[in-house]
Amino acid sequence: MIMRANTDSNRSAIFRAMLARPTTSFLMEAHNGLSAIIVQQEGFEGIWASGLSIATSLGLRDCNEASWTQVLDIVEYMADATTVPIVVDGDTGYGNFNNARMLVRKLCQRNIAAVCIEDKQFPKSNSFIGDGQELADLGEFCGKIAACKDSQTNSNFSVIARVEALIAGRGMSEALDRAHAYGEAGADAILIHSKKSEPDEILEFARLWKQERPLVIVPTMYYRTPVESFRDAGISLVIWANHNMRASIAAMRKTCRHIATTQSLVGIEEGLPSVKDVFNMLDYEELYAAEHRYLPAPEDNNSTTTALKLAV
Amino acid sequence: MIMRANTDSNRSAIFRAMLARPTTSFLMEAHNGLSAIIVQQEGFEGIWASGLSIATSLGLRDCNEASWTQVLDIVEYMADATTVPIVVDGDTGYGNFNNARMLVRKLCQRNIAAVCIEDKQFPKSNSFIGDGQELADLGEFCGKIAACKDSQTNSNFSVIARVEALIAGRGMSEALDRAHAYGEAGADAILIHSKKSEPDEILEFARLWKQERPLVIVPTMYYRTPVESFRDAGISLVIWANHNMRASIAAMRKTCRHIATTQSLVGIEEGLPSVKDVFNMLDYEELYAAEHRYLPAPEDNNSTTTALKLAV
Amino acid sequence: MIMRANTDSNRSAIFRAMLARPTTSFLMEAHNGLSAIIVQQEGFEGIWASGLSIATSLGLRDCNEASWTQVLDIVEYMADATTVPIVVDGDTGYGNFNNARMLVRKLCQRNIAAVCIEDKQFPKSNSFIGDGQELADLGEFCGKIAACKDSQTNSNFSVIARVEALIAGRGMSEALDRAHAYGEAGADAILIHSKKSEPDEILEFARLWKQERPLVIVPTMYYRTPVESFRDAGISLVIWANHNMRASIAAMRKTCRHIATTQSLVGIEEGLPSVKDVFNMLDYEELYAAEHRYLPAPEDNNSTTTALKLAV
Amino acid sequence: MIMRANTDSNRSAIFRAMLARPTTSFLMEAHNGLSAIIVQQEGFEGIWASGLSIATSLGLRDCNEASWTQVLDIVEYMADATTVPIVVDGDTGYGNFNNARMLVRKLCQRNIAAVCIEDKQFPKSNSFIGDGQELADLGEFCGKIAACKDSQTNSNFSVIARVEALIAGRGMSEALDRAHAYGEAGADAILIHSKKSEPDEILEFARLWKQERPLVIVPTMYYRTPVESFRDAGISLVIWANHNMRASIAAMRKTCRHIATTQSLVGIEEGLPSVKDVFNMLDYEELYAAEHRYLPAPEDNNSTTTALKLAV
Repeated sequence: MIMRANTDSNRSAIFRAMLARPTTSFLMEAHNGLSAIIVQQEGFEGIWASGLSIATSLGLRDCNEASWTQVLDIVEYMADATTVPIVVDGDTGYGNFNNARMLVRKLCQRNIAAVCIEDKQFPKSNSFIGDGQELADLGEFCGKIAACKDSQTNSNFSVIARVEALIAGRGMSEALDRAHAYGEAGADAILIHSKKSEPDEILEFARLWKQERPLVIVPTMYYRTPVESFRDAGISLVIWANHNMRASIAAMRKTCRHIATTQSLVGIEEGLPSVKDVFNMLDYEELYAAEHRYLPAPEDNNSTTTALKLAV
Repeated sequence: MIMRANTDSNRSAIFRAMLARPTTSFLMEAHNGLSAIIVQQEGFEGIWASGLSIATSLGLRDCNEASWTQVLDIVEYMADATTVPIVVDGDTGYGNFNNARMLVRKLCQRNIAAVCIEDKQFPKSNSFIGDGQELADLGEFCGKIAACKDSQTNSNFSVIARVEALIAGRGMSEALDRAHAYGEAGADAILIHSKKSEPDEILEFARLWKQERPLVIVPTMYYRTPVESFRDAGISLVIWANHNMRASIAAMRKTCRHIATTQSLVGIEEGLPSVKDVFNMLDYEELYAAEHRYLPAPEDNNSTTTALKLAV
Repeated sequence: MIMRANTDSNRSAIFRAMLARPTTSFLMEAHNGLSAIIVQQEGFEGIWASGLSIATSLGLRDCNEASWTQVLDIVEYMADATTVPIVVDGDTGYGNFNNARMLVRKLCQRNIAAVCIEDKQFPKSNSFIGDGQELADLGEFCGKIAACKDSQTNSNFSVIARVEALIAGRGMSEALDRAHAYGEAGADAILIHSKKSEPDEILEFARLWKQERPLVIVPTMYYRTPVESFRDAGISLVIWANHNMRASIAAMRKTCRHIATTQSLVGIEEGLPSVKDVFNMLDYEELYAAEHRYLPAPEDNNSTTTALKLAV
Repeated sequence: MIMRANTDSNRSAIFRAMLARPTTSFLMEAHNGLSAIIVQQEGFEGIWASGLSIATSLGLRDCNEASWTQVLDIVEYMADATTVPIVVDGDTGYGNFNNARMLVRKLCQRNIAAVCIEDKQFPKSNSFIGDGQELADLGEFCGKIAACKDSQTNSNFSVIARVEALIAGRGMSEALDRAHAYGEAGADAILIHSKKSEPDEILEFARLWKQERPLVIVPTMYYRTPVESFRDAGISLVIWANHNMRASIAAMRKTCRHIATTQSLVGIEEGLPSVKDVFNMLDYEELYAAEHRYLPAPEDNNSTTTALKLAV
């Protein structure tokens, strides 16, 4: 929990402004408080709280094995540890319109800037699994979007509607129809998703898109496409969706393998941030300063509270 | 949640046997379900659920900012995702003997093999912060150990008593006295901790240690010492305490920096495990097989449940 | 948390034996740890953890506004505070077969004896609302039952399948067909539900029921029917489903009204259990005895732990 | 969760105004969402989220067996179900200044109006247990109050400092000294507690009290004292501290006993609120109206979402 700021910067308003900008913005994935801190410290303007990454980091599968309140707990840690806007991957809203609007209220309360909900069934499956996943009924999903918008307690909160029609093999026309309907139902932006390794259908969608709603993309599969193509296509927001999670897997595997094999930290320790560096990331200095302010001076102290000292 | 095994292997018994072996065993740190899976997959016999790493991954500081039930939630994810023994860093037991024994009962219920409690005050500070942290009253801490032992619901559960006397600057004699008292109070093993960069005081302690209780060490600071020294000293268990957490920080920083700078995944994606690899780690195959078993065949299916297909 | 017993009595086995008895047994509703304690202390053999009552006590509506892990937290408190079998109202299993089997594993872990799942859609609606609620696909629900049975980690755990066909206006024939299918899929008992004020359809169902699976009923609406009718009909288990919750509402309303009106506790206090009585219910004596055992005697004590004294 | 209002009324400001009024105000105890709803519906201006009542309702003892986040979960349900100010019994703040200020931030986020913290040690004991419970160090407790005040994210949030000196047998002089120090440290009000059956020491304290800070009392033990005495003494706030919890115990015991003895609901059902009445308390009408708004009309609906109908 970041203790320095007494009031939350209005992250929702900042995110709304990002969406409104004519340029392309970027969100970087995080899945817990620590990765969220890193995303912010490395200069990203906002954080993508990925459903896949959160589930994976918990040791669960990306099909709503984690309950919506378990996900809420995770994103609360993330919000408490950062100040930049966080966009939560809300899957399908965890049920019907009523479940989705409860989620929205709780996300607003936890200082989340936006939620993305997708037009599939609960429990969801990861979009990169199988073909022809069943989509939500159009009317039902529009109602869900409207319920989310009507329930947000922060007027700048955004609801992003994620269109799975291309991935489900339903074609460009249905994707556009759904996107327009979602926009009319109140969605603040449209996330058009694709699992192709080339960006063609995404770029075509962007070309055919007439509505004012900003477009959001997740180029996990068509990652070789240069950002210029997205800029030229008028994409508002690019989400780097799960790379911190995957990078941490690679690093932990390598670390475990080295230590298991050599029975030694030598050769590993040198490449790691020090414990003191870890303390700095979490702002232990604030804690020492607070002790100085709030704990009795040692001489007057018959207190039993352990006093941290200003040293590592 | 690992679905294959219907019954928990008796992890507590396995850990007890590890402690009883004449050889030196190793635990590797994990801090969430994902890192726990990696530790197991890379061949470690057991997992250290580090208080520092868990707090850090949540975005919190290592001074009991996370409540004991928040920590419990994390270690439950870890236990559900693995089958090897997990030893939980229980800090000071989160209060008095009553809090500590409640923790023990809950850890037993969550299939945790052992807990380590340290002889400091609640809220604790990380051992590597400051000098002369206040220790727990000897009698009180012995009562806490006894309460933990009397409350375990799994007869093979172990309570490891962590001696902070050396770190607190109280000297070798007090360290030994405390360790003996903790052993007599029922501790199944003694963790003797040091923050020196040389292992001398640890090795001296081991030499002077007469009791039968196994010794556990955490060579974070004296990491250059070869394992042979620990074996020769009769150390039962070596804990690699926080290296997965720190390795993930290094990797995520690097990943973020690259992507932020280049606005591209090229050059990063190639070094990451694929999404399919992630699915394999979490055993999505079990899910597809379970669908085949439990969901109606498509032709008979007027069900509304989204069916995952046997393909990625 | 009940601290006296070191091991859980096998509540699942006890409940299984209740179901197998030729006589009629009874479960009484509870919705939190306190009401569960009262149910046990007043002599009931088992506890019904009602979905409606739990939702209501949380201040939520009975349509899965509470997540499954929030419900799990509540029933864990209930299990920790009691020793008799608890049957959890698991609604529709909170999603598909995978969600349902995760629930079952967690309920087994929390010492729950049985779960009841109903053949409706997620999110569910309370059975007493509206007409013609949509039922689950038969094959899907049978698969869900099978998944639950295959996933239980306690061999004596029971899965009760709740048939909503009569309430949904689908007729006796479908009710019987579904019940037989559920039994063949592995259900340990069938709960046949009705919202009529007369027991006729329940008694007819029981008469036509040929399978060996025990029958369970919830006579909330046909409450005037004497228990003898149920005994004669061979009903195994009668659930008094929400009366503690409703009784507490009546009592709290009356108490609030009296105090608000009179601005005084006089006239109310006299009818209430004393604070000491409350302490006795929660076994504070165990706590004082534990202090005596685990805390240093005052003379030796330079501890800072607050010592409770053996007096109220 | 109350869905009607899109924004939280400023409960903290309302509570602050209650404290500032020259008249005596009243808070009524609640311990879960349901009891909180009843307190509000019966006309009380505010709710006391009692630590004893919450612990008891969970089936736990009033010595911090529940973690602070478990208590937070409960008060969040209470806040979501109501609109009047809630004052949370924060025990000793669950640790040192850092734990206490984290609590304050989370309470502000959950729309809680105020917290009361008491000058004892963690883990606390109920004030009605034993004699001479150890008090917090004066300087430490003042630092804790200051940390709480500095950390509130809602400027109208109040911190009430509870003085246990009279109960601990430390005398009137220490009680007054502590109260003044706490006021100077930033406490918005002083709760002066007593376990005597006569109000003399409370009234004397009020007479000797010079500071501007409002006084709060909890007349559980001296309940026969007429409210006029408190008004005359200038008491700002009277807390009826645990009577809903105790009333519910009496009612549930009686209900269980009747049903266990008679094996019938006859004679009980008639005195209980109907299920429909329960639905009204939780505003199911809002849900039906929302369905009408957000779900597709049945004719257009090939949706699979269960539709609630506008009837009971």
